[in-house]
Amino acid sequence: MAYTVDFEPIGRRVEAERGETLLDVAQRGGIGLAAVCGGAGTCGRCVVQVMSGTVSPPSESERERVGVERVRKGYRLACQARVHGECKINVPPSSLTTQQRTQIEGRGQEVAPDPLVQSFGVQLAPATRQDLRSDATRLCDALQEQGLGCLRVDLAAAQRLPGILRSHDWQATVAVMHDKVVAVLPPHNPPLGIAVDLGSTKLAGYLVNLSNGEILAAQGMMNPQIAYGEDVMARLTYAVQHAEGGRQLQEVIVRGLDDLARMLCQRAGQDADDVIEAVIVGNTAMHHLLLGLPTAQLGTAPYVAALSEPCDLVGRDIGLAFAPDVFVHILPNIAGFVGADHVAMLLGSGIYKATDVVLGLDIGTNTEVALKVGERLYTCSTASGPAFEGAHISSGMRAAPGAIERVWIADGAVRYQVIDGLPPVGLCGSGILDAIGQLRKIGVLDDRGAMSLAHPRVRQGERGPEFVIVPRSESGNGSDIVLSRADVSEIQLAKGAMRAGAEVLMAQAGISVGDLDRIVIAGAFGSYIDVDNALRVGMFPPLPADRFDQVGNAAGVGARLVLISREQRALAAEIALQAEYVELTNDSRFAMAFAEATLMP
Amino acid sequence: MAYTVDFEPIGRRVEAERGETLLDVAQRGGIGLAAVCGGAGTCGRCVVQVMSGTVSPPSESERERVGVERVRKGYRLACQARVHGECKINVPPSSLTTQQRTQIEGRGQEVAPDPLVQSFGVQLAPATRQDLRSDATRLCDALQEQGLGCLRVDLAAAQRLPGILRSHDWQATVAVMHDKVVAVLPPHNPPLGIAVDLGSTKLAGYLVNLSNGEILAAQGMMNPQIAYGEDVMARLTYAVQHAEGGRQLQEVIVRGLDDLARMLCQRAGQDADDVIEAVIVGNTAMHHLLLGLPTAQLGTAPYVAALSEPCDLVGRDIGLAFAPDVFVHILPNIAGFVGADHVAMLLGSGIYKATDVVLGLDIGTNTEVALKVGERLYTCSTASGPAFEGAHISSGMRAAPGAIERVWIADGAVRYQVIDGLPPVGLCGSGILDAIGQLRKIGVLDDRGAMSLAHPRVRQGERGPEFVIVPRSESGNGSDIVLSRADVSEIQLAKGAMRAGAEVLMAQAGISVGDLDRIVIAGAFGSYIDVDNALRVGMFPPLPADRFDQVGNAAGVGARLVLISREQRALAAEIALQAEYVELTNDSRFAMAFAEATLMP
Repeated sequence: MAYTVDFEPIGRRVEAERGETLLDVAQRGGIGLAAVCGGAGTCGRCVVQVMSGTVSPPSESERERVGVERVRKGYRLACQARVHGECKINVPPSSLTTQQRTQIEGRGQEVAPDPLVQSFGVQLAPATRQDLRSDATRLCDALQEQGLGCLRVDLAAAQRLPGILRSHDWQATVAVMHDKVVAVLPPHNPPLGIAVDLGSTKLAGYLVNLSNGEILAAQGMMNPQIAYGEDVMARLTYAVQHAEGGRQLQEVIVRGLDDLARMLCQRAGQDADDVIEAVIVGNTAMHHLLLGLPTAQLGTAPYVAALSEPCDLVGRDIGLAFAPDVFVHILPNIAGFVGADHVAMLLGSGIYKATDVVLGLDIGTNTEVALKVGERLYTCSTASGPAFEGAHISSGMRAAPGAIERVWIADGAVRYQVIDGLPPVGLCGSGILDAIGQLRKIGVLDDRGAMSLAHPRVRQGERGPEFVIVPRSESGNGSDIVLSRADVSEIQLAKGAMRAGAEVLMAQAGISVGDLDRIVIAGAFGSYIDVDNALRVGMFPPLPADRFDQVGNAAGVGARLVLISREQRALAAEIALQAEYVELTNDSRFAMAFAEATLMP
Repeated sequence: MAYTVDFEPIGRRVEAERGETLLDVAQRGGIGLAAVCGGAGTCGRCVVQVMSGTVSPPSESERERVGVERVRKGYRLACQARVHGECKINVPPSSLTTQQRTQIEGRGQEVAPDPLVQSFGVQLAPATRQDLRSDATRLCDALQEQGLGCLRVDLAAAQRLPGILRSHDWQATVAVMHDKVVAVLPPHNPPLGIAVDLGSTKLAGYLVNLSNGEILAAQGMMNPQIAYGEDVMARLTYAVQHAEGGRQLQEVIVRGLDDLARMLCQRAGQDADDVIEAVIVGNTAMHHLLLGLPTAQLGTAPYVAALSEPCDLVGRDIGLAFAPDVFVHILPNIAGFVGADHVAMLLGSGIYKATDVVLGLDIGTNTEVALKVGERLYTCSTASGPAFEGAHISSGMRAAPGAIERVWIADGAVRYQVIDGLPPVGLCGSGILDAIGQLRKIGVLDDRGAMSLAHPRVRQGERGPEFVIVPRSESGNGSDIVLSRADVSEIQLAKGAMRAGAEVLMAQAGISVGDLDRIVIAGAFGSYIDVDNALRVGMFPPLPADRFDQVGNAAGVGARLVLISREQRALAAEIALQAEYVELTNDSRFAMAFAEATLMP
């Protein structure tokens, strides 16, 4: 095959001949691109965006169906655009027949709701010729009778007040924050909040009833910025190298948040107008890109943030359209790339208050590592990269239907489990890790990752030895699904980075592996991995498997706690100040530890 | 002539034949429409907007020159569009060769500057590998060393901070409001503020150096909403009767504010990024339309405001583009249509603290009347209408070059003074008032406004008797400039409304004309009128002319005081609470007083 076509955000790389349509290539790659008309160019469903590379020029009918403005931005019909070279294609969620799996649940602390926004029901006396008080004055007077003094009414609340009062017999629910009426809702509607974990790869959102803390809906989606760079460094580079690059990335993530919030409201049957507050957490790069903060100084040494303090704003300050008046609280960052998401993870998992010795890893494209020893809390960030998301892996893909998520190899036989039980088309992160762990177990891989050619399933591929996990006769797309020596190297680098981070923190705290009581693994990928195989690969310090705790999206849990509790919000600010950041690019110990950590036990 | 073409915002009505171009009609009306190419349709300078009525369909070349989107909104080339019926044309300022005169100066209180925003110069230590504090933390630490504790940095300030620090050797000027750093400026740039008086007809803006209170520039312009209705009632009706009407009027006035602010900055050679704060005052209707507040309940009995309290927001909350981060303080309204502009006028003129008995009138399309007696301060609003702006007057026009602003009639001779000394093309408000006062003086008008046909200059016109002030042989547009009996009636109604308002307030306070010590006349029109002629017309209670004080734009003065002084801001809030509002539509005394007040002494 002549060229590689990279389909994002699903992370599938498919070989293609010059002249093939993108739809044909996607289908061969097992990507469920919508094509209602069967590729005739009439249904307009298979819209994709060409991010880079060369495809055939757009036809007149495509311009008509997709729109001239969007064609200018690279949008095409996959059934019409033909491969003319290497290219990178963004597949919007609306063009996919099936959705990617995103981990949104997390286990962690629970607290009694005590949100910043308090809500009250009011019944006002109607305006008359004898009582000409403005609606806002009338409302404040009534609240004062209920014992709430000295209130002001925010503009957004005042805009909605006259309509709600006059269509509900002068009744309303009002939301009060500090000394301000910040929102007015129809009577009996509870004020709503949204907590969002803004990952480099995935977004997870929770719609919460602020009056009782109940989760009304949860929703995950891919981070649409992936099309502009798989990891945060690539995106920071994009922001610096393109005029308006930063603004473009902000626009993309804000539209993503809009979509996420709308899905949450739709799923719960709630009105977006009733969403009063949002809490958003993300690493420092995501934080800066979301807030439109300059990133040039963050992407180059000494890697300094523009803003690390907690930040309060309203939706329209960053262009949120689903609820321009929503109050947004952004958790503080710690330092470097260790951001608000890690603060939320430390809060949500309870690590910040652990009395035993705990190592915590929030595994993602960036992996944050924390170590709690006594009163002290150390943190660092490692660039583990997107290999565990299936990127740069021969048969890699993200955790979408058709991905192999579990692998067992014994007695020469290979068994596997596929997401949604479909015919397999690739390997997602947990499947890759399983395969390497199993191959290490049976001795096909040595401690340096070298692959023995002795096993009957190992063959010499174009780029070195490779192990055939699924022969093409069994696969869903007519191609062999393999794990290559090069793939093993990618994983060695990824797991080596996070392991080395853990080692540096232990050195900093003056403890050794024997002092660790438990290891908490957070993050979407972390909840799907098989700890035994991860230990075989040497990803974590060697503790017995029962001392590992896979808590899922703890950052999401933390964001939700901050949304519903003032006490938790204050705790988050404390955690950010208390945590001691270790800059690894500064640390000679890291280079040493990294070399060693790439080895397998 | 077949049709009347109404040119707004200049307020000139010109008769036209079917098929004449709008440019020809405008030129005959003395309106200085830009036509660089002489009407060939090639320069594209004479763009006007057809608000209502019938003109010829747009040509292909017009579409090309004006743009399809703008043509859809009624924009046309005046040299190409031909009159096909009655129509109303909006002339944007950019299409005028000369600007309309707008009163922006005002006399009043002066105070020592003590703005809400305090500014400080800082010099920070550069970030290094050993000192990884975020820019915001670094700034707060430095300010703390200067004795300012516990500060937060606003998002907008954090967005600008890294760039300014790194391009100015880690120096900056920072603006602090309450406990927040709200803006960061290049070192040595003073923070700027803008005060705006948002009149129904005219906007007046002042650019102020917040660190010393100095006025750097002043600028007036027409309120672009005029094209949607000459008085506030017409605009409220427009807002209610059109879907998105309120939003449209908000958009128009916000774009007007953007233009005004840009002109101010340009005139003073200042950067809009350095504008930190703005104070805006307007009557209740302008206030609601600016803030996007619902107006249905304001336009119908019992005429209740959505919000009357002081309001703080940022530019982007209402869509201000020139400085989305600017902090905007909106003064409180009193009640009914007596709004923040009147609060500012009472503050700026000092009436609120007068120890003598003072009647104050802020004359405009709506005229607010105030009466200070002892500790009490009464206010009301009267719909004086746009007649004094030249609307609905046979030869009326606004105070633009070519308008007659002074008239003397004696011994059968008529003398007049024209703005900019041009050949006369119409009468502006002060000219109309002069003409009526002089005609009353020489007995051509009786106390009911009836016009005697005995004077040689009086003739029977199409709509009753009219007095020829300038025969067409002397005029600048080949038409007679006349004052008709119907014109006199319009003025009788306008002055009757404000006079009746004054009478009701005096009745409310239990005083009579003899108790008045002085009369303060504020507003643009009020500064140009001849008090003797106004008294002849019966516009004001009969006090000797030397007890009148014409203070100009006192509302603008008040807005500026509030911008530069925290004490004045608090006083404004007090004035709004202290003022006793009298609702005239509720008051049987008003109808009685009005009938009598239409008479001339």
